[in-house]
Amino acid sequence: MKRYNVVGVGNALVDVLSHCDDAFLDANGVEKGIMTLIDTDRAKELYGAMGPAKEISGGSAANTIAGVAMLGGKTAYVGKVRDDQLGQIFGHDIRAIGADFDTFGAASDELETGRCMVLVSPDGERSMSTYLGMSESLGPDDIDTAMMGDTEWLYLEGYRFDGAQSVAAFDKAIAACKTGGGKVSITLSDPFCVERHRDAFRALIANHTSLLFANEHELMSLYQTEELDEALAKCAKDVEIGAITVGAKGAYVVTKNETIHVPTAATKVVDATGAGDMFAAGFLAGLTQGKDLATCASMGCVAAGEIISHIGARPETDLNKLMAERGL
Amino acid sequence: MKRYNVVGVGNALVDVLSHCDDAFLDANGVEKGIMTLIDTDRAKELYGAMGPAKEISGGSAANTIAGVAMLGGKTAYVGKVRDDQLGQIFGHDIRAIGADFDTFGAASDELETGRCMVLVSPDGERSMSTYLGMSESLGPDDIDTAMMGDTEWLYLEGYRFDGAQSVAAFDKAIAACKTGGGKVSITLSDPFCVERHRDAFRALIANHTSLLFANEHELMSLYQTEELDEALAKCAKDVEIGAITVGAKGAYVVTKNETIHVPTAATKVVDATGAGDMFAAGFLAGLTQGKDLATCASMGCVAAGEIISHIGARPETDLNKLMAERGL
Repeated sequence: MKRYNVVGVGNALVDVLSHCDDAFLDANGVEKGIMTLIDTDRAKELYGAMGPAKEISGGSAANTIAGVAMLGGKTAYVGKVRDDQLGQIFGHDIRAIGADFDTFGAASDELETGRCMVLVSPDGERSMSTYLGMSESLGPDDIDTAMMGDTEWLYLEGYRFDGAQSVAAFDKAIAACKTGGGKVSITLSDPFCVERHRDAFRALIANHTSLLFANEHELMSLYQTEELDEALAKCAKDVEIGAITVGAKGAYVVTKNETIHVPTAATKVVDATGAGDMFAAGFLAGLTQGKDLATCASMGCVAAGEIISHIGARPETDLNKLMAERGL
Repeated sequence: MKRYNVVGVGNALVDVLSHCDDAFLDANGVEKGIMTLIDTDRAKELYGAMGPAKEISGGSAANTIAGVAMLGGKTAYVGKVRDDQLGQIFGHDIRAIGADFDTFGAASDELETGRCMVLVSPDGERSMSTYLGMSESLGPDDIDTAMMGDTEWLYLEGYRFDGAQSVAAFDKAIAACKTGGGKVSITLSDPFCVERHRDAFRALIANHTSLLFANEHELMSLYQTEELDEALAKCAKDVEIGAITVGAKGAYVVTKNETIHVPTAATKVVDATGAGDMFAAGFLAGLTQGKDLATCASMGCVAAGEIISHIGARPETDLNKLMAERGL
């Protein structure tokens, strides 16, 4: 038996969450509904303009790992923070939920722990401006091959392609994971991230990926089509399992043999931040518990439903209880 | 006309909020429902044992000032943070709500920005463990006499008596405020804080205070009686106005001539953190808007009701809208 069910690799970020109206987004040049990378100057400017905020640990793959851990999975997370106050907060929160974590960058480094300014609109949509900071510097030296070789699933965050040494770090993690008999999953993260790194994504997916997570927009961007059916068909050829969310309409699971659709429970969207992350958490938890694919997708939808019902991308309700209530 | 309606002086803290059950409090020696001062070692130990948390700017008087600012008051806050990440967060949040703030301690100092670990029980009660850090070092040098002389009301936080130079700082602020024609208000903060500093509280109240905020337990501790009526009668002799909260039963306002009782709207208590702070905010806002005392107390109860309906001690709903809905 492996030491870990799922090991995640991603950008370690602390979310800075604040409410605003659409006029604020316009006035401050923030594009609604997507993730934009920003530098320190822009981060300072935008933070200065923002209203009062809350700080909650985030990071896409870290949110997923937190969800898997909460659902009883054995997990570890690799994503780089500095050993500063926000880094300590990030480390505390992911360890407190039961995941192994030890990627603190050297204190001498000039980069601070990364943060994501999440502006939540009245309709629950979130617009993210990310200062990667220390997380951008994750490289092969930060990859522990013993850990990667001792997990059932490796979970890679697409956003990580934005770092300079990302591909080298991913390659090292993937090689170790596969040598140990583990499988590779990846999430596309964001349609614009796919746009920026389409070739790297395609190669990684075709050559190494067993399980692909994406939403409809990301998947269509990957395959450069405006037809979801076409994208789903291509996905089914590339990977063993495609787990594709379609917003309020639920999710599709595609394999070479079948297409499964699972609806999502109607929930008022308070803050959409982390919906995709938590879908992946529920799905991976189900998979490592030996559930069938439809059940995995339903678990993903339940976990995603929890996260959009409140501010912040880490679960606030006992996910196990939610699953039990729904017989999952 | 004065530049400020209310200037607050208190311990500047970032709240670290987490849920736990009563068994956790027992196992970790945390006394339920009160505020305990802790040192760095204990802070490290308790934080290590705690579950994942959220960070939200707090500090009792700072919460009150944030509430007054949100209700349209012109405010400033004096409470010391270090110029570190948590200090920047604290400064951002209080400025973003419209209050003036500039009390950053020297970067060379060894003390970090203070924080309060708030453990919220399933019944909504909060148990606070406070590492004062930089906030403890606030002294007379941090008091800007021009600011203190240009406010209608000075609002002093009782918790501040725990600092070594507190009395000297309070004296300087009070003298400047009264010279400028302003009035002094104080909140007792906590029955155990009153216990620690009863003589200092009594002297300050008898000699300088026009408006006293307290809950029933704090007031009875101040006057060393177990009879609320007796405490209210003594309070009415000591100060112009006593604004005394009595939990779910609302609040009393006592003056030399009258005793007013105002009920509170029934609200489910999610997190009691900040109820007293926000009562003071609503009351002070009303007072500086020229409202009668019963209306001031009602505004206090409405603001307190908002704060206990969610996690965190800073308002999440537009307080002006809440007041308007109730014709206040």
